Amino acid sequence: MKQEVVIVKVGGKVLEVPEMLEKLLRNFSSIQSMKILVHGGGRTATDLAVKLGVESRMVDGRRVTDGAMLRIVTMVYGGLVNRHMVARLQGLGVNALGLTGADLGVVRSRRRPVTDGIDYGYVGDVERVDAGRLSELLRQGVTPVLAPLTYDGEGGLLNTNADTIAGEAAKALAEEFSVTLVYCFEHPGVLADPRKGNGIVPIITRPLFRHLKETGVVSGGMIPKIENCLEAVAAGVRRVIITQADSVGTFGGTLIQ
Amino acid sequence: MKQEVVIVKVGGKVLEVPEMLEKLLRNFSSIQSMKILVHGGGRTATDLAVKLGVESRMVDGRRVTDGAMLRIVTMVYGGLVNRHMVARLQGLGVNALGLTGADLGVVRSRRRPVTDGIDYGYVGDVERVDAGRLSELLRQGVTPVLAPLTYDGEGGLLNTNADTIAGEAAKALAEEFSVTLVYCFEHPGVLADPRKGNGIVPIITRPLFRHLKETGVVSGGMIPKIENCLEAVAAGVRRVIITQADSVGTFGGTLIQ
Repeated sequence: MKQEVVIVKVGGKVLEVPEMLEKLLRNFSSIQSMKILVHGGGRTATDLAVKLGVESRMVDGRRVTDGAMLRIVTMVYGGLVNRHMVARLQGLGVNALGLTGADLGVVRSRRRPVTDGIDYGYVGDVERVDAGRLSELLRQGVTPVLAPLTYDGEGGLLNTNADTIAGEAAKALAEEFSVTLVYCFEHPGVLADPRKGNGIVPIITRPLFRHLKETGVVSGGMIPKIENCLEAVAAGVRRVIITQADSVGTFGGTLIQ
Repeated sequence: MKQEVVIVKVGGKVLEVPEMLEKLLRNFSSIQSMKILVHGGGRTATDLAVKLGVESRMVDGRRVTDGAMLRIVTMVYGGLVNRHMVARLQGLGVNALGLTGADLGVVRSRRRPVTDGIDYGYVGDVERVDAGRLSELLRQGVTPVLAPLTYDGEGGLLNTNADTIAGEAAKALAEEFSVTLVYCFEHPGVLADPRKGNGIVPIITRPLFRHLKETGVVSGGMIPKIENCLEAVAAGVRRVIITQADSVGTFGGTLIQ
């Protein structure tokens, strides 16, 4: 029987509110199986960019990353957010190790080509997650904490979406492990009635997803999110959960299968 | 016979001038034995502090680190400098892994107590380097890149002098390995005539050090530097070298023994 690995992706507000972050880290540390934490950190980077007078430009929700912005995200994602989380996790008894994709070469990416006149700059699309290396760390009792920075294979870092890194890591590890992938966001799950904002859809399958799109229950940014989840399931990830940071460790929320 | 480990400490200007840094990293990558890179990054942190309106306060050459400054050094040392070096080293074929003292708990420190009315804030004095963990990484072909941030044992990071981290790592590894410790600074070695600025002292022993102090050949910040080196030698480090970043890999410079 395959051993269990839980991959938790956190981002957004939970990273900025110390009490929320502390709770998330406590919940995460209570997970008994092998585990990986993947984090974003976008808003903190935007705040620092404002203070330093560097313009943040977004296209379709993705950050355009020029040289100045790459320095900022390297400081915020690779430094402030990642190093702080690692120290806190060590304090909670988790033998954490903070990694960008360049460290041990764990996440290789390719710089996104200019398409339709849009140059995202130093943005990378994941090419390969080194499952062997992550597996080795996990089996040594180490908990990797992955920052949303990947390695271009030529000595440089690239800014990469944390959701994608979590999904690719889950798929890469699915052959060896029974993987649970947990995406944390601001709601307790996929909302059954987004206008009222209460009640969640307990389980989403591919046929139900089509129905939810048609009826408008899921729309906007939730569509690619759930598509990613379904893709992970199709690639052998045992279960994918969309939930709130509060619920990490309990595995409540919306189950995608 | 013990296997060789080379520990190189770099700081100052070499970290800020891209061509100098590139040359240093090329030289470092050419070292055939197992190796560790330890870096500072002070001036970049000071620059960022100025831009963010955070005051830098130094006492006896040591940075006073309040909460705002800890965030800055975590971004600069743990993020910008460390992550960039790791990516460049990967590009040069070195399987680098960037670490603060919190990662895998490799460098534990104790917050410096308030002495003579001086509170250094979040500054840590090294308590213990986990030689077993570093040895394990080295034997797996990994090259640790250590940032000057250590772990307080209670979930927090502390700002720590990079020279000290390098020295303590060298001493901790000396039992298992034949350790060479290389301190890079702006001159090709300890200057034989500091006023003229040319010619270096090839070898410094403890008796010669006393003589050099008496005659004023070494003074100021060089005194504690050389004292640290002599201490490392006394603790079993095979050789300690003070040299220029240019000479890393050739082992020129001043040999302390």
